[in-house]
This record gives sequence, structure tokens and C-alpha cells, in this order.
Amino acid sequence: MGQGGLSHFLIDEYILAGLREDMNGEDVSTQALVGPRDWGRVDLLAKEEGILAGLGVFKRVFELLDPEVSFSFYKEDGDALEAGEKIGTLEGPIRALLSGERLALNFLQRMSGIASYTHQMVQALGETKTQLVDTRKTTPNFRLFEKYAVRVGGGRSHRYNLTDGVMLKDNHIGAAGSIKKAVQGARDYAPFVRKIEVEVEDMDQVQEALEARADIIMLDNMSPEKIREAVALIGGRAQVEVSGNISLENIRAYGQLGADFISSGSLTHSAPVLDLSLKGLKHIGSH
Amino acid sequence: MGQGGLSHFLIDEYILAGLREDMNGEDVSTQALVGPRDWGRVDLLAKEEGILAGLGVFKRVFELLDPEVSFSFYKEDGDALEAGEKIGTLEGPIRALLSGERLALNFLQRMSGIASYTHQMVQALGETKTQLVDTRKTTPNFRLFEKYAVRVGGGRSHRYNLTDGVMLKDNHIGAAGSIKKAVQGARDYAPFVRKIEVEVEDMDQVQEALEARADIIMLDNMSPEKIREAVALIGGRAQVEVSGNISLENIRAYGQLGADFISSGSLTHSAPVLDLSLKGLKHIGSH
Amino acid sequence: MGQGGLSHFLIDEYILAGLREDMNGEDVSTQALVGPRDWGRVDLLAKEEGILAGLGVFKRVFELLDPEVSFSFYKEDGDALEAGEKIGTLEGPIRALLSGERLALNFLQRMSGIASYTHQMVQALGETKTQLVDTRKTTPNFRLFEKYAVRVGGGRSHRYNLTDGVMLKDNHIGAAGSIKKAVQGARDYAPFVRKIEVEVEDMDQVQEALEARADIIMLDNMSPEKIREAVALIGGRAQVEVSGNISLENIRAYGQLGADFISSGSLTHSAPVLDLSLKGLKHIGSH
Amino acid sequence: MGQGGLSHFLIDEYILAGLREDMNGEDVSTQALVGPRDWGRVDLLAKEEGILAGLGVFKRVFELLDPEVSFSFYKEDGDALEAGEKIGTLEGPIRALLSGERLALNFLQRMSGIASYTHQMVQALGETKTQLVDTRKTTPNFRLFEKYAVRVGGGRSHRYNLTDGVMLKDNHIGAAGSIKKAVQGARDYAPFVRKIEVEVEDMDQVQEALEARADIIMLDNMSPEKIREAVALIGGRAQVEVSGNISLENIRAYGQLGADFISSGSLTHSAPVLDLSLKGLKHIGSH
Amino acid sequence: MGQGGLSHFLIDEYILAGLREDMNGEDVSTQALVGPRDWGRVDLLAKEEGILAGLGVFKRVFELLDPEVSFSFYKEDGDALEAGEKIGTLEGPIRALLSGERLALNFLQRMSGIASYTHQMVQALGETKTQLVDTRKTTPNFRLFEKYAVRVGGGRSHRYNLTDGVMLKDNHIGAAGSIKKAVQGARDYAPFVRKIEVEVEDMDQVQEALEARADIIMLDNMSPEKIREAVALIGGRAQVEVSGNISLENIRAYGQLGADFISSGSLTHSAPVLDLSLKGLKHIGSH
Amino acid sequence: MGQGGLSHFLIDEYILAGLREDMNGEDVSTQALVGPRDWGRVDLLAKEEGILAGLGVFKRVFELLDPEVSFSFYKEDGDALEAGEKIGTLEGPIRALLSGERLALNFLQRMSGIASYTHQMVQALGETKTQLVDTRKTTPNFRLFEKYAVRVGGGRSHRYNLTDGVMLKDNHIGAAGSIKKAVQGARDYAPFVRKIEVEVEDMDQVQEALEARADIIMLDNMSPEKIREAVALIGGRAQVEVSGNISLENIRAYGQLGADFISSGSLTHSAPVLDLSLKGLKHIGSH
Repeated sequence: MGQGGLSHFLIDEYILAGLREDMNGEDVSTQALVGPRDWGRVDLLAKEEGILAGLGVFKRVFELLDPEVSFSFYKEDGDALEAGEKIGTLEGPIRALLSGERLALNFLQRMSGIASYTHQMVQALGETKTQLVDTRKTTPNFRLFEKYAVRVGGGRSHRYNLTDGVMLKDNHIGAAGSIKKAVQGARDYAPFVRKIEVEVEDMDQVQEALEARADIIMLDNMSPEKIREAVALIGGRAQVEVSGNISLENIRAYGQLGADFISSGSLTHSAPVLDLSLKGLKHIGSH
Repeated sequence: MGQGGLSHFLIDEYILAGLREDMNGEDVSTQALVGPRDWGRVDLLAKEEGILAGLGVFKRVFELLDPEVSFSFYKEDGDALEAGEKIGTLEGPIRALLSGERLALNFLQRMSGIASYTHQMVQALGETKTQLVDTRKTTPNFRLFEKYAVRVGGGRSHRYNLTDGVMLKDNHIGAAGSIKKAVQGARDYAPFVRKIEVEVEDMDQVQEALEARADIIMLDNMSPEKIREAVALIGGRAQVEVSGNISLENIRAYGQLGADFISSGSLTHSAPVLDLSLKGLKHIGSH
Repeated sequence: MGQGGLSHFLIDEYILAGLREDMNGEDVSTQALVGPRDWGRVDLLAKEEGILAGLGVFKRVFELLDPEVSFSFYKEDGDALEAGEKIGTLEGPIRALLSGERLALNFLQRMSGIASYTHQMVQALGETKTQLVDTRKTTPNFRLFEKYAVRVGGGRSHRYNLTDGVMLKDNHIGAAGSIKKAVQGARDYAPFVRKIEVEVEDMDQVQEALEARADIIMLDNMSPEKIREAVALIGGRAQVEVSGNISLENIRAYGQLGADFISSGSLTHSAPVLDLSLKGLKHIGSH
Repeated sequence: MGQGGLSHFLIDEYILAGLREDMNGEDVSTQALVGPRDWGRVDLLAKEEGILAGLGVFKRVFELLDPEVSFSFYKEDGDALEAGEKIGTLEGPIRALLSGERLALNFLQRMSGIASYTHQMVQALGETKTQLVDTRKTTPNFRLFEKYAVRVGGGRSHRYNLTDGVMLKDNHIGAAGSIKKAVQGARDYAPFVRKIEVEVEDMDQVQEALEARADIIMLDNMSPEKIREAVALIGGRAQVEVSGNISLENIRAYGQLGADFISSGSLTHSAPVLDLSLKGLKHIGSH
Repeated sequence: MGQGGLSHFLIDEYILAGLREDMNGEDVSTQALVGPRDWGRVDLLAKEEGILAGLGVFKRVFELLDPEVSFSFYKEDGDALEAGEKIGTLEGPIRALLSGERLALNFLQRMSGIASYTHQMVQALGETKTQLVDTRKTTPNFRLFEKYAVRVGGGRSHRYNLTDGVMLKDNHIGAAGSIKKAVQGARDYAPFVRKIEVEVEDMDQVQEALEARADIIMLDNMSPEKIREAVALIGGRAQVEVSGNISLENIRAYGQLGADFISSGSLTHSAPVLDLSLKGLKHIGSH
Repeated sequence: MGQGGLSHFLIDEYILAGLREDMNGEDVSTQALVGPRDWGRVDLLAKEEGILAGLGVFKRVFELLDPEVSFSFYKEDGDALEAGEKIGTLEGPIRALLSGERLALNFLQRMSGIASYTHQMVQALGETKTQLVDTRKTTPNFRLFEKYAVRVGGGRSHRYNLTDGVMLKDNHIGAAGSIKKAVQGARDYAPFVRKIEVEVEDMDQVQEALEARADIIMLDNMSPEKIREAVALIGGRAQVEVSGNISLENIRAYGQLGADFISSGSLTHSAPVLDLSLKGLKHIGSH
């Protein structure tokens, strides 16, 4: 079933499409010079420190390219990597090792980059009840991988998409007429297993959201003082999410205000890739 | 045909898949509270300065969601944006404006982020014959959009994928036995419209590549001094590409060494998104 | 955007696949005898009483077959139909009217059948706070249409699938060790916007679920007496869902026990189709 | 090649789409509480009596989810089941057993329901030359499974779709001008391996169809007396199909009138599901 | 609905896939040099004489590329073309005219080639009751277009595929034990709307097939004398198809033997393309 | 990874689509008469002499139909075949052998036909520096297989599609204003790894193309004398491609004129199929 919820029936489509994006015909360089029976071995290395994420996807790229590639991994998703550390070794047809390298690394480096950055944010957040969650600010057609990487890095998932979560923003509230009417309308319409979340911008709205019995109140772009005040007012009657320009520098401070969750789009739209590489390919015989 | 090579027959698949990723059923919040005949108007704004890229894709998201959305744009791809500047205005069913917002922005912010960063790199490079090019270090299933954004930002495209360019790396050379044999093998096998590029790491290899009559010689991770020396040795007999850890800080220096091209993976794997938003949705009547 | 959450980008795939299922090549009978410029008009009629659901899907079948078909409808989804009543009229190329008839009706009859049966169940339930909800016992690759039809008939949606709702059954509880551990594990892992539902079979489990602070407690196959007792014990501390062999005959009684929801798989797996037909095709000229 | 014509290359698409419908991301409940190495065993049971159909599809759901699931079946398609009878046992990763359960049962229960109802109809029909056949009144994108189930239950297949059978209805006849012209036109145009079937409503049309040398004459909504009269008139010069409101109650009577075939839409649009379940999941160790 | 049974919902998939095959990214040459607002006009010419087939597909290529292309055609499918004759004129964005040219011609030239060759065969066959039919010896994923072209050229369609026709060859007969058992088995199993065809190689088998009451008897690779003898023996009790190495040279002779059908794989596997071209592109302004 | 660049991830889609084209439901004839456990053996034979191409695709058809089919091949792609020669033997379920036969042969016969014809052209060309290359005049959605077959037959590949090669024709030149501007425009815009090819029709244009420093000059429809003159003028400063009505009869003469390449559309649009067949199916037991 794949790893941690990334079932093959879900990821194979993306990987096959990725293979076709990178090879709409043959890998000319490799076909020209490497024979189908040349077998090789190559190491997967970390070139900088970070958190590993996406090893199952990395592996699946090669499996879909050629089932004769085999793997020995010394690490698994979530493990910390040091610069220079060996993550694993691949053996199999050199053609597959060369042709799959870039796509496999494009997955693994982005996923590990997000996990690493998320981990840094969680570390910066420190000991607190407040948890770090992601957003829908993801790369189109790559969300499955990005949200998984956030979880590997120690973050939590917010809603996956517009269908499986209810978030009432100013425009929804405007359309409904008031927070009260908006929450009631959503509660009447949405699948009852959904919590109703309302985005608010000031204390009056917090009060309204409480009276409307919102399940989650999202404090959008509020100052730390206002957040503290809002948390006190809410007093446990709803879950509290804080959002807006959270960074490595300020997350600890925001984490001391008593909110349940801090969400950050930067986890999926600004994490740099983690530098990894396949190194030292050796020819180990002909099959 | 879409904009600048992003034909609808190519991008529609990605956009439809992106819509299904973000709405596997309905947009619950919007369906609950906004009627099908509520019409609205909303502005697309830049929240920071940068280069716009992806407006055709942004527009297409809404068109595929609902053909009744109409657009007035004051900017086009490649234009510089100032913080706070209005890029355009959308009018149409509020349901479509709300449901398409996130996906449309996820495309536009990433593409504009890449264009903006590329533009900065080109500015940093300054007046020189050396041109900035991209790599295959792209997000799986997002390459079409990322490479387009590099071009909008003033960069050039390297090969699109393994099928349409020949790049001979150490492993290919190892398999062939020598640079000479590798170039010859590739020339014999590859479609003759491909140039043959060889990756080299020292002066001996440069010499070998020249003797093998490679079309392009890629100097990988060489020092500026070595690059200057290699360029002199090559003397116009092959095109020269420089690669390895190019940054905003050092690109100007690398651009003074006489190479034809500098390639940088960071254009597509490390550009931060450009902050853009849809603001000020107004209800303008019922249709 | 289509009707009531059935956006075109979601339903078009299913309709096109349905057209290809019914015509992998041409409609031989129609192509043999009807010319491409023969225009006709035909009425859509109810042959028995019930609730209409799926008119947007019905219409879309013909639009995808030929955009020249036009429609006049006198009814909309959710309207009650009497036997013999005219729902609407279609005009356009006779080829399209004949070739699309069966698929369009196969959608509309099934969806209207579910809406009609759901409506009967809701009527039988009568005045009560208890609401009727659907399940995942749907036809593979037809859930979107079936759950929409339940809503049209006056029912509510339970979770859409395994990804967007948390339901802890005996096997999950067994794996976790106790209800308490299961709820805690789910709460730690699941996106925080999901409510946690626990399936219980006796009063001890109800008590455990309450202590574990489950958001929803599902009473599975309990007797009416036990359900009443459980509702009293729960006392509003969790939402209560009742499940198991609900029928038109017994739903009113189950609706008097104080639960919030009654779920019934029969809505989507046992509703008979509603008999509808296209009648009285008339040739109205050549275009 | 799969079972009885349901080749993997045909059914895998539907199963994979069904899996994605039920899990657009992970199975949250299962991933939260069950480990990837927890192995289990579970029984597939009949909860009521009927005819089994779709076991190959049921099995394939789990295989596509995780190839490590193994199966022991004591029954095969077409076998009669008693209430409470064990159909088989599954062993493998508990995650796959739980995540695939609903989809696998949704297939198997619908298919077995159709086979069971068809079997009842065939039993009711009794000893006669008249055979029971299905129609195109199937669930969109589920026809392959439904028509297979009819065959398992003892019914025969009518045409699969508009491309592979010729059926001339009143509208085709109207377009052609007469039955004679319609049959001739179809015979001139259609692939010559198709039989030509004509739908008629009275004795004059029967006579015309005979003169036109139709291969099959379909008597639509005629009374038993008229059917008997028509069969006599036809006298073996064409095959005879009877259609219109056939039920368990009246099928025996219709079967005594000498027709070759009775077709019934109810086989695929009104058969209730057969109640089956996976019961008694046991943890059997860690792999 | 497209032309002659080639409905858009069927052909669009093939055309879009064809476009992606020919442009996995942009049309570099055209994008480099032609602006998006450059409008042009170009003629479609026949460079040799033949029969036109596929104009609707040709047109659809450009429509899917850019809906702004418009068309004036002076010919339609089935028309005879003389060398040098103008078939039509296209107007629209030059980018679309250039980018779609090759794919549109690849369809039209192949389809017209098949229609032209079929027409020659039909002419060679001359006045006779015997009709020319196609086979399943088609290009994978191009059958829809090839069989359509045969019909345009005056040929008839045999079965479309393995699902919609029954043909019993030596291996099927061997598996069944005898022709009699094979025909009976097929009649018992196949949808009753299918005719049963048997392939025979000598007079004994003809006799057996007659006794088994086969609907169609296919005489495989028999000499003209044997064919005449077989036709006499069959005496109208079954339809007769003749197959095996039919050519332009010998088809007239085979057509005089009294068979109902002659089938020829060469129609779809050996017809040369018809030479057509887009000529005289003129720039007609900027839009 | 499949054979010679035809990776499974690329060809499986085409093969599966081909299977669905030939069996949208079951193979009725085979399912009716052959049991799922009937095992057989059958030989693959050449019925005429030629060059084998596509064996990996042939094999993959059966593997995707049923993984239990096994193969013994005595030949490989590129081998010469004599009439009557045995290419290999297949063993496995008779159902798969019969159901896959036509599709597998449709691939293999077309690919081998192209390889055989290409080989004849290469033989006719004789000893010379001039190489034979293909064009984009391929069957839509079959290019991958056709271009592979050209390579197997001894030809070379020209560009794969519009994205991966630059070819400037009269219309591009017209749009740019001159050959010089066209080449410069393409060089500025195209990925720098592409060579720039210009199509010319007379000596003035050759001179212009040289001055513009085109990488490849294509002499379109020039007489042998003019070609010789052009080659002399070019004098190695660009590669030279000759195009236009090359045939088996005239290719040797064209090959003596000093050009680097001769391209011929006929390789992929006019090669007749190579006659191959599966013969002598034997039942070898029940499994």
C-alpha cells in the first residue's frame, strides 16, 4: 500500500505522468551508450542536513521504470540526515538508474525540503500546546506529496481541499449576511462530519463566531496582543487557529499565545529543496 | 492557442487535474452560502514587486470552471509589478470566483515567483554575452509552467527532457570508455538535429571533448579561474555552459568569464512565490 | 458551474465515459436512417410520481454529444412530479436526440429514483430533530451522482469517502487497544478539521466513547430501547448517529428516540429507478 | 485474463477509479491506528441467500490495493449461497483489508444482487424455450459488471451498446418512411455481421417487419393474446423478443407464448443488493 | 456530432493525443517567428487524384488547437479529387495553421488513401452482388478512422472488434470438438443479436457449417473453383464471405463467384497515402 | 525497461488502448468455446522475407493480457527473416493466445514492414556518407513505434516533433522577413541545444542560409544537379539534408551527391506490412 498513506494506486499516476514529462520518447544519451544488460550500483547521499521524506516515492519511480532495480535503505521517512550521509544503495540496470535519477530526486528533494523546513518551524515553535498546520497553498498536482511531507516533518494537516473542509471567509459571511447566518447555513448544508471554521479579523467577529457556535475560529492577521485577547475570550469554546505571515523568526512568540493551531503557507510554497544526489555509479557486471 | 506556447490542449489537462485535486466533490462552503445567480467583481492585486507570469493559466482556471467569468487585465506576462498594483479585474458568478481563487493563485504565484527570481538573476548577471538557462530540476508535472516562467523572466530554456537533448555525464562516458567514444556513439545514435553536450570536470576532459568535436561543453563545478582557462582553450570551437551553485551573489562574476551559458537549478527549485491576491469581492447583482 | 455542486469539470468525465460505454463507435441504427440535418423535438415525461433529480446531468449528456441541442424545462431538481407530467422539451439534431436518450435517462432515472425514495423516507420520518443521512454504500464510480440525489431528496450527506471523514469501527478500536486510545490516536493524526466518530454496540462502549470525547457516537444495530438509553446517557456531549436496517416502516419510530442522525445504506443501494421517458419525437425540419 | 470475460485490462480502470473515488488521499482512520506490518485475516460471509457474482472483481480490488493480500475461496461465481455461509477468507495487511472493504463489497453486493434477481426471474420463467435477456438500462460506467452479473444469474446478453446492435424503433422507422425502408437502409449500412431488429407495436407492423425480412422482431408492450397471435404469424421466420413490464409475477405467463426472448430492464435497474459482509477480522501477527 | 459517425466525443481524444505527440511543449519554430495576432489564409490542395475522406477530422484538429480558425470547403467526404484541385481554404491565426498542418494532413492523407484504394477495389470489382468488406488488420488506435475511410470509399464494415462479432476459426473449432459444437456453443453464449460466422477451408467443413446452421460461412484461401462449388452447395442457406489475398488484379474474378462478401486486409494495411498539402499561406493582417 | 528505448511506461498506454479498441467487452468467440484453464502453444512465423521489428511490443501485448503467457524467441529486432522461418513460440492460456493475436500482429507487422522497407532503402542507397532519415509523416498516435522501426531498419531519426527540433520553412521565413532574421529569431528563442534547420529551394536561399549560419540546410525538391552545386557551395559549413520524392529507384543516385542526410516520408507512410502469422496452435493440457 505504499508508505504512510501514499498508496500506489494514488501515486503511480503522478509518477508515470512525471516519467512521460521527462521522457516523451527514449532517454537518448543513455540508450546510445549503455547496453540493456549493463548492471550498476549507485549510492543515494545527503549533501546537506535535513529530514528525509518521500523515500517510497523515490523507490517507486525506479520500480515503475524497471522492476529489476533493487534497494537497500539505511534511513526512512522522518529520519534526520547529516551532510554526506548515505541514505541507501540502488542496484540494477544502469539504463534505469540513469533515466530515473532526475525524476526520483525531483520528488525526494522537494519532499525532504518541505519536511526539513517544517521540522525547523516545529523546533522553533518549541514546547507548547500549539500545533503547526499546513494550508492549500500548494503546487498544483503535487499537493498529495507536499502535505505528506509536512506530516513527516512534524506538522499537521489542515483540510485537504474545498470539498473536505468548511472555511467561511469574509465573502461567504457577506453572502450570508452575518457570521451567525453563515455558520447556520454551512451547518445545515455541509456533511455533518465537517467542523465549521470561521475566519475573523477583530474581537467583534470573534464574539459573533462564538455565539454562532463555530467549531474553529481562525484569527487572520491579528497582532499577538489581539490573539491573546481573543484566545481568552474564546475560553475553550472553539478551537483557535492563528494565520498570517508566520516565519521561523516569529513562530515561537506566536506559539505562546494559547492558540491550538498556527497555519503557514510557507511550509508548502517557500521551503527550499534539500540537496540530495545519486553518486558513484559503478558498473557491476552484465546480466 | 493560449499564451506564449502554453496551448490550451497542453495546459487544460493540468488545470482540470488541479481543479479535481482541490474539489473532488463540491466546494462546500461556497455552495452552502452563495447562490448560482450571485454575480460579483474582484480585483487581482500584487502584494509585492516582481514580474508577472502565468496570466493565461490564471484566466484559464476560471474559464474551465465557468465560461461566464470575464476578465479585464491591465498587465501582461513579463510586466513589472509594484507592490499594491492592480493587475486586473474579474467578473462573473461568485461561486466560480471563490472556488477557483486558490488554484488560479497557486499557478500564478509560483510562475510569477520564478519569473521574478529569474529576472533578478538576469539583472545581477548584467551586460554580458553570457545567458542564463534553466535545468530539469523542476517540480514533477509542473515543468511546462516552470520553464515558461523562466523564459518570461528573461532566462533561456535548456533541453526540455531526456528525449530532446543529449547530455553526456561521467556515467555515460564511463560506459562508452572515453569522451571520444561517447560523443561518437551519441552522434551515431541520436536524432541528428540534436547538439551533443558533454559534461567535463577538468582541463584534460575539456581537451578530450574538443577533440571529440562536442557541440557544447559543460563545465561542472569549476572555479572561476578554471572556467576562464577552459573558455580560452575552447576558443569558440564549442559552446560553453557553466554550472554549479550559481547564486544572486556570484552570478555577475561568473558572467564575466566568457561562457555562453550559465545554468541554474535554483530558478525552478528555489524561487519563492510572488505574493498576489484576489481582493475586494463585491456582489454586483443577480443573473 | 453546473447545478448544486455538480460542476462540469467533475461530471464531464463521467458523462464522456458513459457515452463511450454506449457508443464505442457509431450509433449504427441512427446513422443508417437519420440525416445529419434532420431536426426534431421531443418531450421528457414523468411516467410515475416522484422527485426530480439530475436535470443538469441529463442536459449535459446532450450538450456533450452535440452543442446544437436546446432545452426548455418546466421543472427543476427537487420538484415533485406527477405521473404523466411534462418535465421539458428538447430540440435539435435528431441524431443527437436518439443517440443520447438512453444514457441521459440512465442518469436521470437513477438519480430521481434515489431522490424520490429519500423523500419518502424523510416524509416517513416526520417532524423530529433527527435527520436522515446517506452512507458509502454507493455504486462504484457513481457516488457523486447518488449523494447529490440524496441531498435533492431531502437527506444529508455523511462523509464522502475514507479520506474526508474519520469513523472508528471495532477493528480500529481493536488495533488501538481501546476506544480511548483509538480516539486519541485519530485526533493526533487526522486533519484537525475532521470530527472523530466512533461506532459502538453497547452502553459500556457509549460510556467509553464519551470519556474519550468522541465528537460523534454511532449506535450500530441497537434496539430502540437501548438507543433511547444511550441518547440519555450521552446527554448532548456528542452527536448521535443511529444505524442498522432502517426502513420506510420503522424510520418514524427510530426518529422519536432523540438521535441527531439516522443513516441508511438503502438510500443509495436499494432505491428503485423513477420511470421517465422521452416521448413523441417529431421531425421539425432540416437545418 | 480475469474471470469470464472480465479481463484485467478492462476492469482495472474501473477499480482504480473506484479506489480514487473512495480515497482521494489516505484512509485516515486506518492510517491513524493500524501499522503497515499488522497482518490480519477476515471472512467473507453471505448474510442472506442468493447467487454469487463478481468474486474476481472483489479479489482484484484488494490486489490493486496491495499485492500481499491472499485469498481462499470456497465458492465461485454462479454458486448459490445460503444465509450465513462463508464464501472465503482473506489474509494480508490489515490496512488493505480495511481500506478495500467497502469498495470490494460495493462491487460484489451489486453484482450478486443482479445475479440473484436474474436467477429468480429465470426460475419463475420455468421450463420453456423462451430465454431471459437484459437491456441497456444500466448504471452509467457500470454496464460491464451488470451485464456479466446477468449472465452469471442465468440470463442472456442483448446488444452491449448502440454500436454493436441494430434496433429500429418508431423514430427510426419514421425517419426512413416505412419498416421496409428502415430495414433495407440498416441492412445496407450496418456491418453485415449485425442482425437487424425491429420494434413493433401491432399486427400490421409485425406483417411489415416480416416482409422486410427483419432478423428479430421485438413486440413492445403487447398483451399476451397479441403476443401469441404475433408469434403464430411470424412462424419462425424471425426471432421474437417480448418486452415491457415483465415482473417476477408475470414472467411465467409471458414465457408460455412461444417467443424466443423476454427482455427486462429491471434486471439491471431494480435488483436489490445482496447482503454480504466481511466479518471477524483477526490480527494474526506482524510482518 | 461530427461527420458520419465520427462523433466529437470519440475523435477528440485521438486528436488531442495526436497533438500532444507532435507538441509535448511548444512549436518552437512557429512561436519564435510568428506573433499571436498574425492572421493568415491557406489552401488545402489535392496533389494527386483520389477520394477524399476525413475532412471532419482535419477540421477538428485546427478547432481543438484554436477555435478561431475558420474553414471554407468545396468538397466533402466521398468526393473524387483531381490532381491540383482545391479542396478548401482555412483562415485564422498563422500559429495554429502552421502548428496543426502536419497532424491534420497525417489524418487526412491516410484516410483519403484508404478511401481511394477502397474505391479502386470497388471499381475493379465491378457490377456484382458481391460486396467488399474490411477486416481487423488495422493500425492500433487508428481503427475508427480506417474503418470510416473504407465506408467512404464504398466498402462495407465487417465486425468492429472481438466483442461485437463472432468468428469461429480452426482453433475455436478444435477447442469445441467440431463445427457443430462450436456453432452451438457460440449460439448459446453470445448475445443473440450477433450472427455466427464460421471459417472453413474445404467442402466437408462447408457441409458441416451448413448443418450447424451458421449464419455466415467464410471461405478461407480457397481457389475460385472451390469457391464456386461452395457457393452452390450453400445455396443461400448462409451468407458467404470470401477471404485471402484479394488484390486489384484478381478481385473482379473473385466477384463473379456468387459470394456475398469479399474481405480484404489490404484496405487498411496496404493502402498508400493520398498526397495532399496546405499551400500558399498568406499573411492577411493582424488581429 | 522494454527494448531499445520503448520503455514499458511509454508503450503500455498504447497497448492497453489497443486492447480496449479490439475488446470493449469480452472476446465472445473465445470465451464461448475455450476454458480458462486450457493451455496451448503456438508458433510465430514469417510468411515473407524482411526485417523483424517490434518483438518487445508483440510480447508486451500478451503480458498485459495475461502474465502467464511465456515466450521463446529465436530472433530479435533487426534480424533478417526468411519466408517460412520460425521467429518464436508462445505458451500459455489459449484464451490469451487467441484474444491477443490480432493486436500483437497488427503492431509487429506494421513495425516489421517499416523496418523492412527502410532496410531496402538503405541497401539501395549503398556505400556512401549519406544517411537515410525519417520525417513527421507518421500515423497519429503511432509515431513512437514507427520511428523505432525506422531505426531498427537502419535509418536515423529526424526530430521527433515540433517541440524538439527547429525547422524554418518558407512561411516562417516569410513571417520573419528573411532567412537571416528567421535564423536569428529562432536562435534567440529556441532552447540552445537545438540545431537550427532551414528549408531552401534555390541557390540564393542556400547562400542566405549560409550567411545566417544555419546549422542544417534542407534542400527541398531540388534536382540532382542543383543539389550537387549546393553541397559544393555549402562546403561543410552546415549539414545538408535532401528531401523530396525519394524512392527505391532513385535513392542511390541522390546518395552520390554529397549530402549528409536524405529524408523520406515514405518510410512511415508507404511501407507495406510484413506478412507474419501465428500458426499451429496446439492444446497442451489444462492448468
